[in-house]
Amino acid sequence: MPPGELVYVGDESGVVSVSVTDYDEREYRVRVSATMEECVLRKGAPGVTWINIDGLHEVAQIEKLGACFGLHPLTVEDILNTEQRPKVDINEDYVYIVFNMLTYDEQAKEIDSEQVSIVLGENYVITFQERKGDIFDAVRDRLKTGKGSVRRSGADYLAYCLIDSVVDNYFKVLEGIGEDIEEVEDDLMANPDKQTVQSIHFLKRETIYLRKSVWPLREIIGKLERGETPLVRAETTVYLRDVYDHTVQVIDTVETYRDLISGMIDIHLSTVSNRMNEVMKVLTIFAAIFIPLTFIAGVYGMNFDTSVSPLNMPELNSRYGYPAVLAVMFTIGAGMLLVFKKKKWL
Amino acid sequence: MPPGELVYVGDESGVVSVSVTDYDEREYRVRVSATMEECVLRKGAPGVTWINIDGLHEVAQIEKLGACFGLHPLTVEDILNTEQRPKVDINEDYVYIVFNMLTYDEQAKEIDSEQVSIVLGENYVITFQERKGDIFDAVRDRLKTGKGSVRRSGADYLAYCLIDSVVDNYFKVLEGIGEDIEEVEDDLMANPDKQTVQSIHFLKRETIYLRKSVWPLREIIGKLERGETPLVRAETTVYLRDVYDHTVQVIDTVETYRDLISGMIDIHLSTVSNRMNEVMKVLTIFAAIFIPLTFIAGVYGMNFDTSVSPLNMPELNSRYGYPAVLAVMFTIGAGMLLVFKKKKWL
Amino acid sequence: MPPGELVYVGDESGVVSVSVTDYDEREYRVRVSATMEECVLRKGAPGVTWINIDGLHEVAQIEKLGACFGLHPLTVEDILNTEQRPKVDINEDYVYIVFNMLTYDEQAKEIDSEQVSIVLGENYVITFQERKGDIFDAVRDRLKTGKGSVRRSGADYLAYCLIDSVVDNYFKVLEGIGEDIEEVEDDLMANPDKQTVQSIHFLKRETIYLRKSVWPLREIIGKLERGETPLVRAETTVYLRDVYDHTVQVIDTVETYRDLISGMIDIHLSTVSNRMNEVMKVLTIFAAIFIPLTFIAGVYGMNFDTSVSPLNMPELNSRYGYPAVLAVMFTIGAGMLLVFKKKKWL
Amino acid sequence: MPPGELVYVGDESGVVSVSVTDYDEREYRVRVSATMEECVLRKGAPGVTWINIDGLHEVAQIEKLGACFGLHPLTVEDILNTEQRPKVDINEDYVYIVFNMLTYDEQAKEIDSEQVSIVLGENYVITFQERKGDIFDAVRDRLKTGKGSVRRSGADYLAYCLIDSVVDNYFKVLEGIGEDIEEVEDDLMANPDKQTVQSIHFLKRETIYLRKSVWPLREIIGKLERGETPLVRAETTVYLRDVYDHTVQVIDTVETYRDLISGMIDIHLSTVSNRMNEVMKVLTIFAAIFIPLTFIAGVYGMNFDTSVSPLNMPELNSRYGYPAVLAVMFTIGAGMLLVFKKKKWL
Amino acid sequence: MPPGELVYVGDESGVVSVSVTDYDEREYRVRVSATMEECVLRKGAPGVTWINIDGLHEVAQIEKLGACFGLHPLTVEDILNTEQRPKVDINEDYVYIVFNMLTYDEQAKEIDSEQVSIVLGENYVITFQERKGDIFDAVRDRLKTGKGSVRRSGADYLAYCLIDSVVDNYFKVLEGIGEDIEEVEDDLMANPDKQTVQSIHFLKRETIYLRKSVWPLREIIGKLERGETPLVRAETTVYLRDVYDHTVQVIDTVETYRDLISGMIDIHLSTVSNRMNEVMKVLTIFAAIFIPLTFIAGVYGMNFDTSVSPLNMPELNSRYGYPAVLAVMFTIGAGMLLVFKKKKWL
Repeated sequence: MPPGELVYVGDESGVVSVSVTDYDEREYRVRVSATMEECVLRKGAPGVTWINIDGLHEVAQIEKLGACFGLHPLTVEDILNTEQRPKVDINEDYVYIVFNMLTYDEQAKEIDSEQVSIVLGENYVITFQERKGDIFDAVRDRLKTGKGSVRRSGADYLAYCLIDSVVDNYFKVLEGIGEDIEEVEDDLMANPDKQTVQSIHFLKRETIYLRKSVWPLREIIGKLERGETPLVRAETTVYLRDVYDHTVQVIDTVETYRDLISGMIDIHLSTVSNRMNEVMKVLTIFAAIFIPLTFIAGVYGMNFDTSVSPLNMPELNSRYGYPAVLAVMFTIGAGMLLVFKKKKWL
Repeated sequence: MPPGELVYVGDESGVVSVSVTDYDEREYRVRVSATMEECVLRKGAPGVTWINIDGLHEVAQIEKLGACFGLHPLTVEDILNTEQRPKVDINEDYVYIVFNMLTYDEQAKEIDSEQVSIVLGENYVITFQERKGDIFDAVRDRLKTGKGSVRRSGADYLAYCLIDSVVDNYFKVLEGIGEDIEEVEDDLMANPDKQTVQSIHFLKRETIYLRKSVWPLREIIGKLERGETPLVRAETTVYLRDVYDHTVQVIDTVETYRDLISGMIDIHLSTVSNRMNEVMKVLTIFAAIFIPLTFIAGVYGMNFDTSVSPLNMPELNSRYGYPAVLAVMFTIGAGMLLVFKKKKWL
Repeated sequence: MPPGELVYVGDESGVVSVSVTDYDEREYRVRVSATMEECVLRKGAPGVTWINIDGLHEVAQIEKLGACFGLHPLTVEDILNTEQRPKVDINEDYVYIVFNMLTYDEQAKEIDSEQVSIVLGENYVITFQERKGDIFDAVRDRLKTGKGSVRRSGADYLAYCLIDSVVDNYFKVLEGIGEDIEEVEDDLMANPDKQTVQSIHFLKRETIYLRKSVWPLREIIGKLERGETPLVRAETTVYLRDVYDHTVQVIDTVETYRDLISGMIDIHLSTVSNRMNEVMKVLTIFAAIFIPLTFIAGVYGMNFDTSVSPLNMPELNSRYGYPAVLAVMFTIGAGMLLVFKKKKWL
Repeated sequence: MPPGELVYVGDESGVVSVSVTDYDEREYRVRVSATMEECVLRKGAPGVTWINIDGLHEVAQIEKLGACFGLHPLTVEDILNTEQRPKVDINEDYVYIVFNMLTYDEQAKEIDSEQVSIVLGENYVITFQERKGDIFDAVRDRLKTGKGSVRRSGADYLAYCLIDSVVDNYFKVLEGIGEDIEEVEDDLMANPDKQTVQSIHFLKRETIYLRKSVWPLREIIGKLERGETPLVRAETTVYLRDVYDHTVQVIDTVETYRDLISGMIDIHLSTVSNRMNEVMKVLTIFAAIFIPLTFIAGVYGMNFDTSVSPLNMPELNSRYGYPAVLAVMFTIGAGMLLVFKKKKWL
Repeated sequence: MPPGELVYVGDESGVVSVSVTDYDEREYRVRVSATMEECVLRKGAPGVTWINIDGLHEVAQIEKLGACFGLHPLTVEDILNTEQRPKVDINEDYVYIVFNMLTYDEQAKEIDSEQVSIVLGENYVITFQERKGDIFDAVRDRLKTGKGSVRRSGADYLAYCLIDSVVDNYFKVLEGIGEDIEEVEDDLMANPDKQTVQSIHFLKRETIYLRKSVWPLREIIGKLERGETPLVRAETTVYLRDVYDHTVQVIDTVETYRDLISGMIDIHLSTVSNRMNEVMKVLTIFAAIFIPLTFIAGVYGMNFDTSVSPLNMPELNSRYGYPAVLAVMFTIGAGMLLVFKKKKWL
């Protein structure tokens, strides 16, 4: 495929929904279900414009928008290729940020992932999501009510708010996984079985996936914060530093989880070995006690003819043969038990 | 949540207690249970002021204090969010340091953690703790008695003393964990069981947690020491270098503990396998000796009619049948024992 | 061997095939089965020339070409030594890039590797492949149809297209391995056996090999992109940045695979141990129930003479001896079952 | 504790012994059992003065010496705190180096450690040891006999000689541990048991400890060698480079040992598993051969009344019953042996 | 030992053999068995002089040579101490390079190592080997025949040729080890036993050793190549870059081998566990089938007196008692087999 060839590789269901939000310190306007034309008109208008696009499968529309806002063909290609590694591209006219929005499905114990692209320009922000979601709703509310400094600040502050709301959501994902880890840990100690091994493997995969999403984010926000682009103003930097710290905290926690999980399978093996040891001890105790006794019973069950010779099993005709044999058996059994008690097997 | 929105996430019990300490080379004054207003009055007063706040749940008060001392809303947010990663923020007017104060509960064999925030300004230090504690008492005593150079030095030296007392306490935590490691090591060799596995897993978690608290500290103190802020004077740097060395030593010890613990579970597995081997040998020796003998006894317990044919179990009617069989059995048993002796299983 | 001594170490079968492609914005000419002389003539001609050589065993020809285009003897040696580590050599007149073209053989579940050398000069590109392949066909098509900007751009853009097509193919290899990993994971949980261990070991080897090919690539493209040579123009840099991102993504995925595979063998061991535990439990349950019962049966199979003394096995002559013994046996058996039920072995 | 508070934490037994050595190219004088006053007098005297103090528990004396030679209170604190991490402090007037002197106790297979502090000034060296030792004797001899360039060189060369003699001793420690590793390796292959696991764990601890002592040393000597202080003259640098190389070699060897030891416990586990496999095979062979045979014997030991019906155990009254059963038993036994032979269990 | 004290620690057998080779573009002269005096005479003579010394135990001779060519005493010490870590010392008048020449003994499956020192001066190269070897023969031949550019180039090019021939030999060592790894891998899958564990451990040790020799080499050649000394001319740099690439390739392969070997012991453990599982299944199947049957046979072997009461073993006198019991036994046995078949144990 030539570079810049536009193909959308993700899910094609659902309707593409476009919303345009304009605001400045005094005014705030939203157009839901806007057309691409309306979006294009906003370019260069005063105030800040936030264009949000849910659903990426109308490739031609997105190409048009890209052309109008002067996006490089490779940027548009990256917006559509939803298996992108998180990254930031700093161009002259705009900054392109792509990363994953994660949500944790408590039922399936799975991380759902969706690619989010943010294009930050002089006075506009364009966001691209694969599906309609509600993570940006809090930002929308703040814009509407004018709470916080969001209406007084520029497009860079809006971009920060959007990134921040995604990163904040990571903590929820971490919490969900943390709870699962604790559940598996309890299982591990109480009742380790095949299911536990599967859960550990599953958790490991989730953490590997999470790590892949989170590590690049640190670099991305670091780049924005270091002031490599004039599109991010100095007063926004302190906020980005805050998200950066959150990202580092997320990474720290992911690494902590990895450490915990990596030891679990060894602990499972140790616990299972311990149990097998217990099982083996039970078997050995039964065998060691009854096998010699059964042998003795077998001996006196032999049919040698006692009448042929007094050497042939004289015990059988002895007066106290049976009680004597029982006593011997009891002594052997009790002796064995004592030996095992001393060995601490019982 | 918008950035700078103030929510306290920690424990809400207990009373908020505020104390204000003013001192210079000649004077020393403490007001326990001070009001926020008294704190605010101290701003810009001569000498050094140390405001210590135990308990963070009166959010409005802390916001007021923050506003008065010119703290950035994000700083106040971080003071209240007690699940912060340790960090230092160097601002123009003040330095904000947040890290964990750890204590080791010998009984529960657990690390207790509490977040401590230190705001270092031109001539004041504000400390925020979640609960009333006694780690800063030594510093208070030194201030009172004027021992050491603490009264002659500025606010930065006071901040150093406070950090130093927290880091010194880490050594106690390390000592506690070190003793637990030795206990588990003894168990591991003498009597490895399920409990040992749990203890190892528990120790591992503690060390992971400790590590998360300690690693960032190195960076924090390194930043302060490198003179990135004029609020830390050159003469204090040599003391910070000393705390820095202590932090490195703490990290070294934590890593040593990690190394030790990471090998333990393998050793447990090896010891358990060794033991199972012993159990299996006992079982096999009993089985190998008595199963053939029982078979022989079984053969001569068969009821073939010796009167029908001389081929049918002539041994039973033989004069020396029984002693011969016993002799054979004894020989087989003794032979087996010799074989196992040679194999070094006995 | 002296440096610069030319020896081809690879496969010697097949015909050497040389094709020369000239193009500028207006014209496009291909000569298949060109002679070396024709290649040489193109040096310094206007437009861009792409010489592609499939098969490296006519050493003299390649030496001649090298001499004509001013390649350093060590470069020619590297072209012929097909066990080269991927690298880039930036010389004054040309850039020499060598790396591996990988394809995944779904049947044999094996990675096939072929060394590709690219020499990028002022207005020419020379590519050397070991065998005829079809990975460059897409680039050929684009040149022919003039699609994309390839015809308007220089030799560096052509080199980029060639590198890009190889890196794109890596994703297919990754996909193939990813599918194999999933297959083995299913096996691991459902039915772990000796075959599974072999598959895991095999996958591990593949990933190690892949890693060896991919890691150096990052450095190579990074060097080209950083503008260390005037042969790569600034406008091509943004495209190389794109390939660079792809390479990082490939490396990320390889590392993810490594992480997954490295845990698999532990999981296999844990699952096998779990199963052995099950087997042992079955054995122990059978043994613990029937061994005591068989012993009791053995006791009443002893032949003590009941007529000699009333102490000798009076049970045998008792009216309810047999049912009583059966009842005792049943009680013991049922008791054992209950014990094992309580221990959760059943 | 306030910084600079002097407390000695080590062993308090033994006598403090102070020796003062003065030398220049022509003269050499030693005073054994010198008083602190004599030491102090040497400050600023011509020639080089080496004050060696064995035993640190007379804190007041050491404080006095420190004050006289202008040591920072934190330096004196570090001299007395014998659980210091190895480090170098470069001050204006002196360089403070602290590190561990290790000796290997062949009997107890233990590393003995003692902290050594070296203070290097303009024309003096002060060394502090916890106990009287003999590692510096070689340096004393060289000073006395004037062998080598030691008498012609300055205090920095003396400091180098002292560091060098300590580092040289590390090689002896490594040799001791290397021999222990080989011993354990032999055990591991020949006769792995519980003792072997303990030895491996012990070796691991020793190496972890060694590592902690050795790694910082590299940094220390590196700092001295890079000429960060005028107290180390350029002509001494080449010698420090040599010690630096030795330190790197020590670190390399320690890492090699770590690598070797880290694999040992896995090998132990594998060997034990192999052995258990052997034990299990023996058990299974015995069980598989004799259990069916014993069953057959049991069948013909049943007491069904052959006179009631010809269906009841007609074999017992058959002429060839017994030999036939024996033949069947023999065939089954031999068949089993063949099967196991084919399975390569025998 | 004082620094610069000369002691040879290696093998003392064999004769010291000295050869001196002079050459320039036109002339080429060799003196085998030269005396040290002849060597010394060559200093400062026109053309390039290569002095090769096989055998290091005539310490005085080497000291003399060192003194004449102005080598630092520490350099001479390093030449004689044959347990040196590979390194390069760049001095004003000469460059001292020391590294290991490795050969692989196919029989013993062992790496033989010999220390090689190269002293590169303005127009001379001195090489020191412990034993007579043939690795430098190819260079000698090239000098003699004047093939390649070696005769036209300076002493630095000669040094490069010598280093190159040693590094080329590393590939042979790698090949040998690679073949051993494949052998062990085959064993691992087909027939894992105690021997396999030993082989893996042995391979691990070899790789650790190899690594220790190879890693420093990269740094050494890197230093030479970066032009830190005027003794290495710019035109030689491109050749050193080539050796550098080879070294990186060697390191890559060593790391790959390490990765492969590190997983082997786990695979061995998994395979052994798998096998034990098989053994256990065989045992359990035999036990589970025959133990209940033997118990039934035991029951009907009891000697309860059927004449006393009709409750006492009426089965024995029943007409179809025996066939019924046999049928029951057969049913139980067949049932067990079916159960195990369903469990996939058969």
